Order: sequence, then C-alpha cells, then structure tokens
Amino acid sequence: MTKKELIHQIKTKKSFLCVGLDTDLEKIPEHLKESADPIFEFNKAIIHATLPYAVAYKPNLAFYEAQGEIGLRSLKKTVEYLTEEVFTIADAKRGDIGNTSKMYARSFFEYFGFDSVTVAPYMGKDSVGPFLEFENKWVILLALTSNPGAQDFQYFDIDESKLFEKVIEQSQQWGDSNNLMFVVGATRGADIKKARDKAKDHFLLVPGVGAQGGSLEEVVKYGMTDECGLLVNSSRSIIYASNGLDFAQRAEEKAAEIQSEMAKMLEVRGVV
Amino acid sequence: MTKKELIHQIKTKKSFLCVGLDTDLEKIPEHLKESADPIFEFNKAIIHATLPYAVAYKPNLAFYEAQGEIGLRSLKKTVEYLTEEVFTIADAKRGDIGNTSKMYARSFFEYFGFDSVTVAPYMGKDSVGPFLEFENKWVILLALTSNPGAQDFQYFDIDESKLFEKVIEQSQQWGDSNNLMFVVGATRGADIKKARDKAKDHFLLVPGVGAQGGSLEEVVKYGMTDECGLLVNSSRSIIYASNGLDFAQRAEEKAAEIQSEMAKMLEVRGVV
Repeated sequence: MTKKELIHQIKTKKSFLCVGLDTDLEKIPEHLKESADPIFEFNKAIIHATLPYAVAYKPNLAFYEAQGEIGLRSLKKTVEYLTEEVFTIADAKRGDIGNTSKMYARSFFEYFGFDSVTVAPYMGKDSVGPFLEFENKWVILLALTSNPGAQDFQYFDIDESKLFEKVIEQSQQWGDSNNLMFVVGATRGADIKKARDKAKDHFLLVPGVGAQGGSLEEVVKYGMTDECGLLVNSSRSIIYASNGLDFAQRAEEKAAEIQSEMAKMLEVRGVV
Repeated sequence: MTKKELIHQIKTKKSFLCVGLDTDLEKIPEHLKESADPIFEFNKAIIHATLPYAVAYKPNLAFYEAQGEIGLRSLKKTVEYLTEEVFTIADAKRGDIGNTSKMYARSFFEYFGFDSVTVAPYMGKDSVGPFLEFENKWVILLALTSNPGAQDFQYFDIDESKLFEKVIEQSQQWGDSNNLMFVVGATRGADIKKARDKAKDHFLLVPGVGAQGGSLEEVVKYGMTDECGLLVNSSRSIIYASNGLDFAQRAEEKAAEIQSEMAKMLEVRGVV
C-alpha cells in the first residue's frame, strides 16, 4: 500500500485505528476452541466486526509462532482474509545482518503478503535496508517503545539528543516518508513531540493507548500532521473486550467508540 | 544445558566451535533437493559430519521462516536431531514487550527445545527478562554485532562508554553468567577486550570469524578466560565448503581444521 492510499483510507473511514491481533489461544472465547482453527476463526470474526472502523491490522508474530506450524497457517489465512483496503503490519521486531534481513523481508512481504514489518534498529543500516527494497512495502522502525524497558537504553543522552531521537534522525538517510514509519509509544506527550520534530512527514505507529495508559488526545495534540500521520494501535481493549459469545459485537462497539473519537479529532484539525 | 555442562563439552572436544545452520534452499547441493525435506537432510548430514568438532549449533531462524510452515517443521526436526551433548542456539534476535517476549520464550524453549536464544537489547529489561525465567536456558544478548551497521548506533558515546558496553553493563542486573551470554563481533580485537572487561565471567558468542574477516587468534587473545568463555561461530565457511556430493565431507574437514586450531589455543592457555 502506498502512502497516498493509506491517507485515502484514513479520510474515507475517518479513522487512524490499528487493531492489534495479539491472538492468544488462552484468552479467546471457549466456544471457538472446538473449531478446526480457533485462532483464525477468532481473527476472522474480529476483522469482520471492526473493518468499518479500522484502517490497519497488526498481528503480533510471537502469538502465532508460539503455536508452531499451525499458528503460522492461521497467520497466513488471516493476512489473506484482510482485504486490500487495509494496511497490514507484521509486528515482528526483526533486525539481523543484511542477508538474513533479506530472508525475513521475503518471508513477511512475499510469503505472507504483509504491507509492512516492525524492525529493531540496534544493528543499523544493513539490517534495515533489505526491507526498504520492496516496492510499496514499509519498515516501521522501533524508536520509542511503550514498555517500561524503554527507559533502559532509549533515553540515553547522545550529544544533545536521546538515543530514540538519533534513531529517527539517522534512519532517514535510509528511507523516506513513503516507506519508513516509526514506533513511538504513547506514554509521554513530550516524547511524541520530540519524535514529530525529528520526523515531520513520517507516519508514527503509536502503541500504548488504552491498556498501557497512554492518552489519545495527547498523541493527537503532539503527533498529528495535515495528512494525519498517525496510526494508533489498540489490541487487548478491543479484541478481548469480552470473552463470551458476544466478543465480536463488543469488539465492534469498542472499535466504533474509538473511531468516533478519532473522527472528531480529524475534523477539528481539518484533516477530513 | 548448564554452564558447567557446556564447559565440560568444551574440554572434552577441545573445541569452542559453534556451527551456524544458515541453511538456504538455494545454496544446498542439487542432489538433496529431490528429497522430501531437503533442509533437514542437509542439516542432518552437516551435524553428523561436524559433531566431533563442534560444541554448539546455531540455526538462524530467518532461513527457516522464509520457507513458512515447512521450514519450521525442518527446524523442529533439526533441533530434535541435535543430541543433548551440544548447546543449541535459536538465532532469532527477538525482543518485545514483556507478555510477547514470554510467548517467544515459550516457543523457542518449550516448543522447539532450544538451550538459548539471541535477544536484541533495544527494548530493555522487560523484553529480556521473560527469557531468563526458564531453568537452564540462556539469553544471548546482542552487544556488538559483526555487520557494517554495528557502526550506526552501537558505538555511540554514553558517559565514558560505548552503547554496546552500556548494554553489557546494565544487563548484568537482569541475569548472571549462568544464564546470560553476549554477542560480540570479531571484527576488532580492541572491542573484544572492552566487552571482556565488562563481562569477566560471561560466555561471549563471537560471529564474524572466517567469511566476515575476523581473526580467531585476536578473539582468543582478548576474549578467552580460564573456563574458555567463548563460543566462536562459523556458518558459511563450514556448511557451504562445497555444494557438491562431497559437501558433508568438506564440512567435516573444515570443522576439524578449526577445531585443531582451537585445541592448540585451549592447551596453550591451560584451559584443557
């Protein structure tokens, strides 16, 4: 998917919601567990219910890999089920030497058919570059994450910047706003501002709103651009809104609620 | 595997060689491609040929994932084929928020049965911690990698140290030399010394010897301890020593050659 197409989807649906498909066999409703492929059945129902309100879907690879071959089959079916109108993110946080990153890129972009993959920056340019060579495919580089461990290294002072700012700065020599986004956690508004100052035209993928405590208003205040420039992810608060027979309906309600807030914000800021 | 058992293997085989199973369908001998599971057939032959000379095996996950479900099946069979006497490394370079790292840990340690997994440090303590909670299992944390991109971030100056030294220092609050090793690339002797100064008792996993240009002598000079403290990885120069019918024999010769150098070094330094 191109940047233009993504922006078109955001304007059409008046939403910049990304649904995180962190599908855990232990957490899905009991009645699905008897089906042949419970993970896929769950995802299918969640996608069907939330599709009018979401522009992106982000399966977290760990949850599928934990089930071995079967989990990967569920993942492939899930990506195939997602229509072309949504932006798909392989939340894989990969990063390896050049020839290995190339293998990962092939796996996510060609075998599974994802639009984008999250990549860890620690190994530098040649670990990220192979993902940037695919047409209309994206790297979403970890800059500032939303977990407590973000404090350990990402805030180190280097010259006048923090490490996460350096990552955003330096990686712009490798890709541009048409194939490179950044993960920027929603836990502190001031940090979203810092990230936005370093990456004026890039989309930011923002986790940590909802279950992890970040505020959507803060994110929009400091991160939104004329083209929106944001994808805000919500996983657990949508997909596990209920674990009963009504799980899909409750997921739909939750997604609709977030989308309605997002629509207002897009309107107030003149994006739509 | 415990540290004591690993040291016992090193002393018994007079080797600290790790064979990297970066098995690429495009590079394996033609005659294997007709078998039902070419990747596993290749690995089995390589393992059988090199087992007297190697103490560790390191499949790189990307190569297996690139083949989808089938690749993961080959990987599982490969790990099962590896005997208990060798140390197994899932070269996966994972690192995610706590509950996700937990899923990865289960996948590598429980589903596949690896002894260790390589982990990226960028996301900090809670991304590494879940891997350290499994008995007799190990984290091998990326500190200094052997690729060109190592220059981009890993050498940033922070206080009086480089970023990779800070990673080594700080992570020792999370694990000890019984469950935590570090990846330290072999490209510069001075850096191996820096890593060893920060991690006196920890094993270092050293890639970059051979195909990538590092010198075994330099590694041993600056990195070896009384207990050896080193695992030196070689991938392509062993497994692709030949791509003809004699591939396993040539791999054996190459592994034997490296082991014989290693034996001398272990003897000179009084480890065996």
